[in-house]
Amino acid sequence: MVGIRDLAQRLNLSIGTVSRALNGKPDVNEETRKRVSDAADAMGYVPNQAGRALRKGSTGVVGFMMQTGSEITGEGDMFFMSVFDGVQTVFARHQLDLVALLCSSQEDPDAYLQRVVARGFADALIISATKREDHRIDFLANRKIPFIALGRSETDAGHPWLDLDFEGMAETGITRLVEKGHRRIGIFAPLDDANLGFILISAYRDVLNRHGIDFDPDLVFRGYPNERGGHAIAHAIAAMPKERRPTSFLLANEALSLGLYNGLYEVGLPPGQAIAVIGRDSPQAHFLVPKLTCFTLSLRELGIALAESLLATMPGYEQQYPLGTVRRVVPLELFEGQSDRNRGGA
Amino acid sequence: MVGIRDLAQRLNLSIGTVSRALNGKPDVNEETRKRVSDAADAMGYVPNQAGRALRKGSTGVVGFMMQTGSEITGEGDMFFMSVFDGVQTVFARHQLDLVALLCSSQEDPDAYLQRVVARGFADALIISATKREDHRIDFLANRKIPFIALGRSETDAGHPWLDLDFEGMAETGITRLVEKGHRRIGIFAPLDDANLGFILISAYRDVLNRHGIDFDPDLVFRGYPNERGGHAIAHAIAAMPKERRPTSFLLANEALSLGLYNGLYEVGLPPGQAIAVIGRDSPQAHFLVPKLTCFTLSLRELGIALAESLLATMPGYEQQYPLGTVRRVVPLELFEGQSDRNRGGA
Repeated sequence: MVGIRDLAQRLNLSIGTVSRALNGKPDVNEETRKRVSDAADAMGYVPNQAGRALRKGSTGVVGFMMQTGSEITGEGDMFFMSVFDGVQTVFARHQLDLVALLCSSQEDPDAYLQRVVARGFADALIISATKREDHRIDFLANRKIPFIALGRSETDAGHPWLDLDFEGMAETGITRLVEKGHRRIGIFAPLDDANLGFILISAYRDVLNRHGIDFDPDLVFRGYPNERGGHAIAHAIAAMPKERRPTSFLLANEALSLGLYNGLYEVGLPPGQAIAVIGRDSPQAHFLVPKLTCFTLSLRELGIALAESLLATMPGYEQQYPLGTVRRVVPLELFEGQSDRNRGGA
Repeated sequence: MVGIRDLAQRLNLSIGTVSRALNGKPDVNEETRKRVSDAADAMGYVPNQAGRALRKGSTGVVGFMMQTGSEITGEGDMFFMSVFDGVQTVFARHQLDLVALLCSSQEDPDAYLQRVVARGFADALIISATKREDHRIDFLANRKIPFIALGRSETDAGHPWLDLDFEGMAETGITRLVEKGHRRIGIFAPLDDANLGFILISAYRDVLNRHGIDFDPDLVFRGYPNERGGHAIAHAIAAMPKERRPTSFLLANEALSLGLYNGLYEVGLPPGQAIAVIGRDSPQAHFLVPKLTCFTLSLRELGIALAESLLATMPGYEQQYPLGTVRRVVPLELFEGQSDRNRGGA
């Protein structure tokens, strides 16, 4: 790569003069500035950002940590790209670039984050897939690195976070199913210690309890949050004794509905007829037959809120975004489809 | 952030001693090393990677440039996450981290790449969504930044690339449809100047020509490469006079089949009955009824090949990957489903 030293040598100028010319300092005359600028273009000069970061303490980059790996591809795919779009809308106002930090499913997220921070190429971080206890939160807070969590955690460093309103989904979804006569309501939860699993199951128990329905652990279906996971649920339901099966199902995860639909058709328990289904909106869900009754939110808006809430905590941006430390759940709306039109046998 | 200076002050040691202790140099005694290490942990010391990059000329990061935005979410989602997984498998051997550089669809990809390069936080780049003429290729080649392109381009800097075998898909797919009596074969192409559109349509014309079938521009359906794009094609077909409609369809893009299927059912032209469909494999396509006849490849293997081909051009890695400058198309296999079981009216 052509650096400032090569440029200075070629032009027979000092590095200081070339640097001041490139940075538009007033003590360089127009002719010199033009010579430097033309030579920089012609030689393919690349400003050394590593040097800049050292001086300014600012890289202009914000990292969004997410996990990759075949078993989580479903959710990772559909959700994050739309969120990124919203985040970028905000960052574009400030010439900040978003990069996705891809933590392989093979790797410990804590060790990954520590390495990424040590590489030091981002000014701030967005973390996702928060666990019930999440060491990343303490790690970043201790190092005073600005960050926001997409997802709640029991680990509390007084940090900003946004999360989906899983309690609201449980309340609205289960009450709707109970009012249609359902008493056996199945629910999906992830296999790992993602905090959303704890929040969702806890809310599910509370709402059932309020409706006078006993919690039945057999109605909690655990699996991978992707199409195959949804497909597997249908086959697990079919394998249960008839009187033990759920008559309805709440899916708070968007990636499973396609697989669940197809599985339910395969085992002869069609959605909206044998089993009422309430799910989450997704590009694929639009094409399901019968139309999926689902919770919707604008992922782009969620991305915008994430970015603005993060900037509210970053030096140099907090005055433009006087939001304080944002810690809130984002509500979802219910779209009424036909997938839960069947009534439960009371 | 706590830096090396704070650490040195606290310990009453010189910055040089602290640096040598942290870097495990032999001229620091064990006691001092332990003092430094304990203090670094206690104070939350963050090694300044910007400084490291300056000295070593190496960041340990490889960027994968991809485009985001609602109109391309379909393809972006399903394809890249699986490719990333393969790339990371290789990079993990070398403690290299992959970051996704997310170029918003609102932004000029050339300007974006220049800014990313100026930020200087990656040792090498993978670019995707290559255009017929792609300035990014010349830009990176001129600056001697190691890179590989996922996708061919008319812009040739002697650089490495990998691409899918669109010619092979056209040859196998169209010949299969012709042998089933089809003469009116529809094809999808993107709206923009993505090079794959040119390659695919050119191959489509060649293969038709070899079978003695005239090219009909009305059978080229352009749109966004996502579910909605597939859905729109079905409605466009239904709007054509019956005798002008395709009796079969080749989809070289994986994100459209779900929308196309649903659209075809809506307009009363069911796939595998009224219209033969050959598509691309995807997690969603597994659940289509009738089973989609489709081209498959391992995206993980593609990611591995991309990473190894890139390393083959990077200083310090080329001897471990003596592959030279890789420039090749990756073949796909045909999975025989039921979506093209109907014969064309000859």
